[in-house]
Amino acid sequence: MELLKGKKGIITGALNDKSIAWKVAERAIAEGADIVLTNTALSLRMGSLQEFADAHGCKLIAADATSLEDLGALVDGAMEHFGGPFDFVLHSIGMSPNVRKGRPYESLDYGFLSKTLDISALSFHKLLHTLYEKDALKEWGSVVALTYIAAERTFAGYNDMADAKALLQSIARSFGMIYGASKHVRINTVSQSPTATTAGQGIAGMEDMLKYADRMSPLGNATADDCADYIVTLFSDYTRKVTMQNLYHDGGFSSVGLTAAEVATFPKE
Amino acid sequence: MELLKGKKGIITGALNDKSIAWKVAERAIAEGADIVLTNTALSLRMGSLQEFADAHGCKLIAADATSLEDLGALVDGAMEHFGGPFDFVLHSIGMSPNVRKGRPYESLDYGFLSKTLDISALSFHKLLHTLYEKDALKEWGSVVALTYIAAERTFAGYNDMADAKALLQSIARSFGMIYGASKHVRINTVSQSPTATTAGQGIAGMEDMLKYADRMSPLGNATADDCADYIVTLFSDYTRKVTMQNLYHDGGFSSVGLTAAEVATFPKE
Amino acid sequence: MELLKGKKGIITGALNDKSIAWKVAERAIAEGADIVLTNTALSLRMGSLQEFADAHGCKLIAADATSLEDLGALVDGAMEHFGGPFDFVLHSIGMSPNVRKGRPYESLDYGFLSKTLDISALSFHKLLHTLYEKDALKEWGSVVALTYIAAERTFAGYNDMADAKALLQSIARSFGMIYGASKHVRINTVSQSPTATTAGQGIAGMEDMLKYADRMSPLGNATADDCADYIVTLFSDYTRKVTMQNLYHDGGFSSVGLTAAEVATFPKE
Amino acid sequence: MELLKGKKGIITGALNDKSIAWKVAERAIAEGADIVLTNTALSLRMGSLQEFADAHGCKLIAADATSLEDLGALVDGAMEHFGGPFDFVLHSIGMSPNVRKGRPYESLDYGFLSKTLDISALSFHKLLHTLYEKDALKEWGSVVALTYIAAERTFAGYNDMADAKALLQSIARSFGMIYGASKHVRINTVSQSPTATTAGQGIAGMEDMLKYADRMSPLGNATADDCADYIVTLFSDYTRKVTMQNLYHDGGFSSVGLTAAEVATFPKE
Repeated sequence: MELLKGKKGIITGALNDKSIAWKVAERAIAEGADIVLTNTALSLRMGSLQEFADAHGCKLIAADATSLEDLGALVDGAMEHFGGPFDFVLHSIGMSPNVRKGRPYESLDYGFLSKTLDISALSFHKLLHTLYEKDALKEWGSVVALTYIAAERTFAGYNDMADAKALLQSIARSFGMIYGASKHVRINTVSQSPTATTAGQGIAGMEDMLKYADRMSPLGNATADDCADYIVTLFSDYTRKVTMQNLYHDGGFSSVGLTAAEVATFPKE
Repeated sequence: MELLKGKKGIITGALNDKSIAWKVAERAIAEGADIVLTNTALSLRMGSLQEFADAHGCKLIAADATSLEDLGALVDGAMEHFGGPFDFVLHSIGMSPNVRKGRPYESLDYGFLSKTLDISALSFHKLLHTLYEKDALKEWGSVVALTYIAAERTFAGYNDMADAKALLQSIARSFGMIYGASKHVRINTVSQSPTATTAGQGIAGMEDMLKYADRMSPLGNATADDCADYIVTLFSDYTRKVTMQNLYHDGGFSSVGLTAAEVATFPKE
Repeated sequence: MELLKGKKGIITGALNDKSIAWKVAERAIAEGADIVLTNTALSLRMGSLQEFADAHGCKLIAADATSLEDLGALVDGAMEHFGGPFDFVLHSIGMSPNVRKGRPYESLDYGFLSKTLDISALSFHKLLHTLYEKDALKEWGSVVALTYIAAERTFAGYNDMADAKALLQSIARSFGMIYGASKHVRINTVSQSPTATTAGQGIAGMEDMLKYADRMSPLGNATADDCADYIVTLFSDYTRKVTMQNLYHDGGFSSVGLTAAEVATFPKE
Repeated sequence: MELLKGKKGIITGALNDKSIAWKVAERAIAEGADIVLTNTALSLRMGSLQEFADAHGCKLIAADATSLEDLGALVDGAMEHFGGPFDFVLHSIGMSPNVRKGRPYESLDYGFLSKTLDISALSFHKLLHTLYEKDALKEWGSVVALTYIAAERTFAGYNDMADAKALLQSIARSFGMIYGASKHVRINTVSQSPTATTAGQGIAGMEDMLKYADRMSPLGNATADDCADYIVTLFSDYTRKVTMQNLYHDGGFSSVGLTAAEVATFPKE
């Protein structure tokens, strides 16, 4: 299939072959896209994105998504590489120092919270702002950011990432209205099943949450590979009138109250 | 592109070349699908679906979607035609005698209301029940029903169709949980922009609603053709973990409070 | 407190002292209201509403809420009793023959489904239609119907009652727009925690659902008494601008993804 | 009526007699509550809160809600004044330098954005954190924060306040789960009609938005007085099981797609 034939885009946030962004990059290439990869210098050292770039002949540009300067260089570099405006962007960036340091939500460190929001949510506004200002996206371009249902319902242990994701989703809507009206660029968030990525491993009780989500999802949890499949449809020309949406890609979890599979695990008297 | 290569499915509700279902049928064929068409005997006489079937060499089976007998014959006929279970189904069926006869919502005719619900919503349960009972859908099959945002927010003049669509969407979730868990079949509704179909023309003030929706949609209203594009992604293998969702395909309308384009039309003092 | 001093209204659906409607009736009287009670003739024989009416000196009018004739007589009787239009109405009516007879959702009896919808949802439209036509509610009157979150998320075993509640909630919005604009009457639904009423006992696995909901509600399940407290605020003049809403009264359940209390019950390896 | 008889609480954010918080303070006192007022030193100079405090014999404590130190002194001062823990808190704090300086959303000043979020959203976490840490709220206490529907749907001109409100609402849920489970304290947000307060006057096109909202609200816009009535019910013991909710108090606006009143203003050909 060549769903993204001739399309060009930036994929942020791939660390290693467990990352959703890594799978999206692979899938986008397989569907005919030309991509530019990016992550922080630290992530490039810790992960294996350079090898991916080498293997697939992709351009890789280190950038800190909280830095307007870095984002400017990233977008300029991509435009230069692509020979002009491009078609799609994936935002897959999130990190909470409060989660990492085990600060419970009721006594967050506010310096950490500021970092959580800056990295996980405001980076999205900065990225969109940079794209918009440089007119870097083609008409009917598509931007997707990854999110999680904790933005709507509270999950024990998800901590300030819930607030960051709520903020991220609001930014998608707010900027989506403007970018849609002026350039027909669509902006959506994909609310993915909990996924066993390296980042996900930082969340307390991740294993339990994965199993719970799986039991509560009629189709089972969506995997990173499933997510990549879905996201390429959102980058394709088949979905040009979908914008400002939060799209659940979760095997049905978000519309479930209680499954028979979950009832079967209930404690017996 | 051959997004639906080797896939087989039933498309209900196409009347003429203005119908969303007609566009979906065309698009599905263009994407490599083999389809069976259906509508009521009356609609076949009033519209031009027979010509479509002839032109594309599709099987056409007349059926009243409120009749379990007809639905049984439809699904049997499709399985016979396809040589076994198939992959997708589009439900695009709705009609309100109250709207047609101009009965306002506050004084509905309850016989008519019963018909509205039976045709526009319960037909979906009957169709799913028939598919389920006959095990007519393959693993990871996909069912889509068309709906409208009036199911969530009240629009003057949409009348009892709003209630029918709310019921339809609930059926999608209720059956989606069961069909997902047992056969990995996904069931979603697509909430489409108001569309200038023959059916849409029955709604009071349709023209105004189209313009209003267009002004309030950053990408403009989604057309029937856009909708067909979108729906084929939902029938494809790219979206296998999306289920029990109501998916807005509306140029952003559902996430908009107020656009600058709408403000520009406000009455001046 | 006399939150409903001088107010008059109809309370439907009280069967016995476990009913939410019974508690609302008690509470409304304690807050100074004058009420008319109603239920079906069968329910009056099976329950103890006559004793309640006798004890509190309330008027009791038998009525089948699916019958326009009965509803007409009920509203006429109430207006005669109150000496004119009144202030509030509680709709607390629901029953599913499919649930009672153990028909699973995937193979509903459609005659039963029709009854489920007629009793549990269309009765609300008929009641509102009767009130509207007879101009039986005062300006800024208030109507509340009881519902359950299964209207938004699927719960194993809740069966076609989920669809009925979705329809009920849509009717509240649809009629709420009309009644609000013409007479400032507000119409809301209260989505209550699962409650151990006589009706609730018909639902399969009710006990498990109660415990699960309690573990997943930060404040614990709301009781029938709690619900009565809440509903009198909605009948009072303190909430005159709230309309067309579905209001969760559930200890937080609807906004929870996963609590620590639930995690504690997860099966250990 | 004495809905809040014997109850004690803090009201933030009242500036002058146009403020919603001012109306809530008046109403709470009229309902029997003892209150402590607070606002920034600057607001105290600009507005007339000192006069209100003098007239009603309320304690007034200046505090910057972005300062943990000030919030600590506020809560300590309130506990001292009340002789121990208290019952309710109103958060009514919001400000966007981007809005004030006319920076459009697509090119926000990020220093300003940080201030918008800090003042309008993170102040709520800091306030809750301070209350929690000092165990300043009684069992079954109630916290309400004011918000606006722009958190869910985008309104032209509402700018980064939309994102701040989305973040605020998420904080209400996240902290609501914790405070509910540990102390039965409930936390809700009230999503109020646009209101002609001094703060509201900063929003571009406020007048048009007020009229539009009014036409699109079957009961008309909710006023500041209406809002005060509603909020006292949320502080009272009648609503003890409502938590983690965003409650629309808007005359029906949030559940409306299109009213006849709005259609009547549509431009004619």
